[in-house]
Amino acid sequence: MSTQQVLDWLQTNEEQSIERFMDWLRIPSVGTDSKHDADTAKAADWAADHLKASGFSVEIKPTGTAEDPGQPIVLATSPGDADYTGPHVLFYGHYDVQPADPIELWESAPFEPIRKPAEGAMGERIVARGACDDKGQVMMFLEAMRGWYESTGKPGGGVKYTVLLEGEEESGSVNLERFVEDNKEMLSQTDVCLISDTGMLGRGKPAITYGVRGLTYLEVILTGPDQDLHSGLWGGRVPNPINELVKVLAQLWDQDRKVTIPNFYEGVRDLKDSERKEWESLGVDPVKALQGIGMPAEANVGEKGFSAIEREWARPTCDLNGIIAGYTGPGAKTVIPSQASVKLSFRLVDDQDSERIAESVIAWFHERTPPGCTWEFINHGGGAPATCATESAPLQAAFRAIGKACGIQPAMIKSGGSIPVAGLLKTTVGLETIFMGFGLEDDRVHSPNEKFELDCFRMGAKSHAALVEELLNS
Amino acid sequence: MSTQQVLDWLQTNEEQSIERFMDWLRIPSVGTDSKHDADTAKAADWAADHLKASGFSVEIKPTGTAEDPGQPIVLATSPGDADYTGPHVLFYGHYDVQPADPIELWESAPFEPIRKPAEGAMGERIVARGACDDKGQVMMFLEAMRGWYESTGKPGGGVKYTVLLEGEEESGSVNLERFVEDNKEMLSQTDVCLISDTGMLGRGKPAITYGVRGLTYLEVILTGPDQDLHSGLWGGRVPNPINELVKVLAQLWDQDRKVTIPNFYEGVRDLKDSERKEWESLGVDPVKALQGIGMPAEANVGEKGFSAIEREWARPTCDLNGIIAGYTGPGAKTVIPSQASVKLSFRLVDDQDSERIAESVIAWFHERTPPGCTWEFINHGGGAPATCATESAPLQAAFRAIGKACGIQPAMIKSGGSIPVAGLLKTTVGLETIFMGFGLEDDRVHSPNEKFELDCFRMGAKSHAALVEELLNS
Repeated sequence: MSTQQVLDWLQTNEEQSIERFMDWLRIPSVGTDSKHDADTAKAADWAADHLKASGFSVEIKPTGTAEDPGQPIVLATSPGDADYTGPHVLFYGHYDVQPADPIELWESAPFEPIRKPAEGAMGERIVARGACDDKGQVMMFLEAMRGWYESTGKPGGGVKYTVLLEGEEESGSVNLERFVEDNKEMLSQTDVCLISDTGMLGRGKPAITYGVRGLTYLEVILTGPDQDLHSGLWGGRVPNPINELVKVLAQLWDQDRKVTIPNFYEGVRDLKDSERKEWESLGVDPVKALQGIGMPAEANVGEKGFSAIEREWARPTCDLNGIIAGYTGPGAKTVIPSQASVKLSFRLVDDQDSERIAESVIAWFHERTPPGCTWEFINHGGGAPATCATESAPLQAAFRAIGKACGIQPAMIKSGGSIPVAGLLKTTVGLETIFMGFGLEDDRVHSPNEKFELDCFRMGAKSHAALVEELLNS
Repeated sequence: MSTQQVLDWLQTNEEQSIERFMDWLRIPSVGTDSKHDADTAKAADWAADHLKASGFSVEIKPTGTAEDPGQPIVLATSPGDADYTGPHVLFYGHYDVQPADPIELWESAPFEPIRKPAEGAMGERIVARGACDDKGQVMMFLEAMRGWYESTGKPGGGVKYTVLLEGEEESGSVNLERFVEDNKEMLSQTDVCLISDTGMLGRGKPAITYGVRGLTYLEVILTGPDQDLHSGLWGGRVPNPINELVKVLAQLWDQDRKVTIPNFYEGVRDLKDSERKEWESLGVDPVKALQGIGMPAEANVGEKGFSAIEREWARPTCDLNGIIAGYTGPGAKTVIPSQASVKLSFRLVDDQDSERIAESVIAWFHERTPPGCTWEFINHGGGAPATCATESAPLQAAFRAIGKACGIQPAMIKSGGSIPVAGLLKTTVGLETIFMGFGLEDDRVHSPNEKFELDCFRMGAKSHAALVEELLNS
């Protein structure tokens, strides 16, 4: 029994696969909205039933507390062949979806999935909330599992899988951390994490994402006078919290656009020459990317000494994400406000420590307290960066699987974004994560008219199918 | 005929004066609110009638255009004695009042004035919108004029006055500039401007304000990408408008808290040693003032080399009055926004030029344009600073008048605030302005439960009465 038979099964049964996929999409599993709790539970049950039908042992695990229950976690396992020597794979995904708002911008109902021709390309797409993120990407895995089971009678085709599908990814995975902590022993049995929730390098260009950045997110509030003041009577006599805040914030970066927080770069791995060359060879054009957001070539700036792709994938950053103080309505008001506040976040790379960075940042602000003023800090959380060694056996298996299934070598890429579950699994149970995702930049994830190309869906299902054989042989 | 007889008249007729004052306060002349246009016109007529009853020749002048009419200006004149050799005085005031909102915080109806005992002090106060700003302060002058007319039969007691009362002071005096321009010749006949719209040094401490600061107010918007971006995918690859804006804004001040805009201090008059000494002798305690706004002594910071009072009265400043960009709601959002904007204002002193400063500031920002970004500027206007020479004869007359009327030498003070009409009259018709105001810091001007102490009202009316004799003798 080989992959080819499963690929044939996938092709022969594609209409049914798509019907199943659309059934799942019809369930409005908006995990963040308690009005949809019954739907969210239904979507979990739906995934559980699918996995059961593919021979998996399945449990639905409640999360949260009696007073504040969370969305259930679907936990499924395949035993693996008796002689299986490959890695025990933890497949992570989520069955909750973003809210559909703004509903009026949808061209079709978000929870009534439709098939329609893909613009300017062959093939079709599915349009619905969750079509890509993450039901569509999870469905590729589920259908590959079904194909192997129906073709061989063996759950997971003989590979030892643990499948963990959560229902709170879009609302911050608030109960996942505790679940992982509580199930540390069980999760420690697994060898590597596999996630399909990332993108390809471009249309028809599959990719493995072998690293994501971590995050530290703080809100900082500076308080000066206990009331708003008239800037005529007080201007020049008292520290103005806006003046003072911008003077402190401007010190976050030096002339080379490096972050100035002491020890900030501690642990940052040096870029290998081989990586630099590989990334350069991907042919990603930073100027074209800037054009896409209305900016000229000269806007290609960032930390000195690194290309755009290096800055996104391998270097930490500091961005102010929001700032507000004083009068912000129309016209003029001559006020010195009592407070000024800013939200700032740091994207982190291996092996920076998110919590230590938060502490360093807070200490840094305290060293710069304007006269007579006070700081307040709110830590909005974050997560560890996660990089998988490119030479790791499971990653190499995935690399080969995609190559065989798609007939094209996948690009080895990283992402500047953050997928906190990867950092969580790394720091809690020491797992590395392989991101095998098939999304496209224009899939409108989190936006109205979210879609997933059936071409991408097929590549993903075939790749997951091919990965089984690679794992069996490893 | 001497001041004493007019002072006697004021005392004898005080109840009627207060009744008249309260009648005027009952008219809700909220100039900025077109629903109150009839009330505003009525308040103008009321003032006109009062001036007519005091022998003045009065006109009501429409302002604005046929399509966009403004509030009327009350223009009244007294001819002056045939042998009058003193200055032709332009008395400026306004009969419009601030809106009463938030109405629920008023302890009595804002347009139903009441007399009540003053807290912790002898005497009474009037509580109503406009009680101090500016009907109460104008009323002091009007009753002094009435007293002289009823005592002597001569309008203005023989002094040559032009009285200009506008109805748009609280909404930016939008039509006054044009009125002044159109009536330049008439206004050029006057020698000095007299305004009662400022405060005393404290309870029982009358003062002449001989200077106010000017203002330049700009809004600056920095645009980077043409859309909000994901800070994971773009952080480090593109200029973040918030990062870039704070880096530029922080350069507005140097280590000594001086403004760094080139030529900003051009024209700033050096502080005279005599002024420094006089101001120090006023005994204003900056630390006590800071305590009143919840700040410790160390918050007494500002431009190096100057005391708090010097910084407020004699030095220009730059304050950020509002800033907004990115995500400012609860929690976290990892966004790089398309735009960031700030409102900033400069308080100016003689002889800085408000318009030239605006140009310098805009040029300064342009020299600091972040890569690929663009600036947009909105000029919210401003006004010239205005300082009256302390040795000027009319100011000395006012000084003597207050001293005689109140039995206490007035303090000679300045204000850090801006009264644009003074700058307008200075730049358009070359007039200096004397501010002879009797407000107290706790009069809750612009706030609910605005009040005016009858003690202050009496001091003001008596001082205006005494000023007539000083002018007749000058």
